[in-house]
Amino acid sequence: MKLYTYFRSSAAYRVRIALNLKGLEAEQIPVHLLNNGGEQHSEAYRQINASALVPALTDEHFTLTQSLGMIEYLDEKYPNTALLPQDIEQRALIRAFSLSIACDIHPLNNLRVLQYLKTVFNISDEQKSAWYAHWVKTGFAALEAQLIHSNGQFCFGQQATLADCCLIPQVYNAKRFNIDLSAYPKIEAIYAHCSTLKTFQQAAPEAQPEAA
Amino acid sequence: MKLYTYFRSSAAYRVRIALNLKGLEAEQIPVHLLNNGGEQHSEAYRQINASALVPALTDEHFTLTQSLGMIEYLDEKYPNTALLPQDIEQRALIRAFSLSIACDIHPLNNLRVLQYLKTVFNISDEQKSAWYAHWVKTGFAALEAQLIHSNGQFCFGQQATLADCCLIPQVYNAKRFNIDLSAYPKIEAIYAHCSTLKTFQQAAPEAQPEAA
Repeated sequence: MKLYTYFRSSAAYRVRIALNLKGLEAEQIPVHLLNNGGEQHSEAYRQINASALVPALTDEHFTLTQSLGMIEYLDEKYPNTALLPQDIEQRALIRAFSLSIACDIHPLNNLRVLQYLKTVFNISDEQKSAWYAHWVKTGFAALEAQLIHSNGQFCFGQQATLADCCLIPQVYNAKRFNIDLSAYPKIEAIYAHCSTLKTFQQAAPEAQPEAA
Repeated sequence: MKLYTYFRSSAAYRVRIALNLKGLEAEQIPVHLLNNGGEQHSEAYRQINASALVPALTDEHFTLTQSLGMIEYLDEKYPNTALLPQDIEQRALIRAFSLSIACDIHPLNNLRVLQYLKTVFNISDEQKSAWYAHWVKTGFAALEAQLIHSNGQFCFGQQATLADCCLIPQVYNAKRFNIDLSAYPKIEAIYAHCSTLKTFQQAAPEAQPEAA
């Protein structure tokens, strides 16, 4: 397998966690989102992912986009260390939580959107920070409410799932933007716990070769 | 089952299509996103969905948010008329296509975001239209590239899937905003075909009781 990745991309970070949790190896191919006007816009990369977004995953003859789709694919193709449980209702709750991050928070704050707001609407750095924090806080309040049964180590149940693959990169980003997360104690506890695990540590942006 | 819905919400529209395709009945409970300052913000509705977004789905004791999560849940709990095929790679391609809509297009153009851009950044109607069209066109170009094997009736294979549940509402919205879709002939063909089917027609915004 090959994972086209950028060290700070939180969508790529989700897939790196999933690969580590499942004990799968993928060759990592860096796509630098800022250098050379953004390598994701190159014709060569668009042949791999027409969306010009990272990550992309190739497995044998097959190329896949969308981090949540990749993780579901990995979980179905390589069932060892399942990232979704068998119970239909639990699966649904974990998917809903994950989609709350992937649909309601992350898309509003990713690089291309911040670039549009700055270059087209000419917003200030303060306005950008307020926009970023608004969607994180709105989203985190809803996430915290969904963690009522969490043991404070993982989002759902006794082991890491798709939900943790999504939550940890989103918290990492929020901390990078200095957002106060004290109103979300379950989220903070889960982040603290997962940060002690090698599978999560090795997926973090600063552990990637390009970060050096 | 109960579906908390708004006739123009394209996320609710996805779930209405899925229910119809699977022959499932759900009581529809309207949540008006504009009246009374937005009924989705009421304390009563936040008890159902802490995100203050529609749709929400209740099935027996169980409440679920996130339209894609709901459709996967319905497909697992009620396997009749599957919306995802058995083949792992096909499932992955259909999920990736659906997530390209649910993560890369829809979140940027939904009501709460357009309201933020207008009230906080004070953008003009022209700027709002350009923003809307930018994300639709960027997204549709990537979707069209994923439809290379489509038969021009459905996105993948010989019957409707999760992908069509997501595509048709997004095209409906694009047409409502008068976006020229002539560059996306596969998307146009699939929309035209699905629009002839009762399962899709009965899920459309204008077919909902609140539209009257």
